[in-house]
Amino acid sequence: MPTIVVDVMPKAELLDPQGKAVSGALDRLGVADFTAVRIGKRFELTVEGDVTDEVLATARRIADEILSNAVIEDVVGIEVVE
Amino acid sequence: MPTIVVDVMPKAELLDPQGKAVSGALDRLGVADFTAVRIGKRFELTVEGDVTDEVLATARRIADEILSNAVIEDVVGIEVVE
Repeated sequence: MPTIVVDVMPKAELLDPQGKAVSGALDRLGVADFTAVRIGKRFELTVEGDVTDEVLATARRIADEILSNAVIEDVVGIEVVE
Repeated sequence: MPTIVVDVMPKAELLDPQGKAVSGALDRLGVADFTAVRIGKRFELTVEGDVTDEVLATARRIADEILSNAVIEDVVGIEVVE
């Protein structure tokens, strides 16, 4: 069954305390390869049947209106897999 | 600067109450295109310099050991962007 993947990340200009915590943990564990960590969400929407233009438009709409909070988050990707 | 994206999802055989809640909300709002919603995490690791094989191996290791909980989650993707 096809799946639409929606990626949502905290806006670049906002602090991301969860990411900062992981970044600090990596430092303490001696992992120095990564200068920053940001943590967002990945939604997998299962579609029964074909992914028509209409279904994709609906996915875009709910990504903006329901799955993300436009004040603090950006939808960074919508793609169809499988 | 290159970024390594790590995608982590709850294991398929586990309930995902967050996803179930969103799925129920979509039903109530009259959006019937999606039969299931699952919600995972997307990590963006910023790399200063080049993404060498070594850096990628470190990313794979921390994805398994630190960014995900192998009991309830799977690392479903690791890719370099930019």
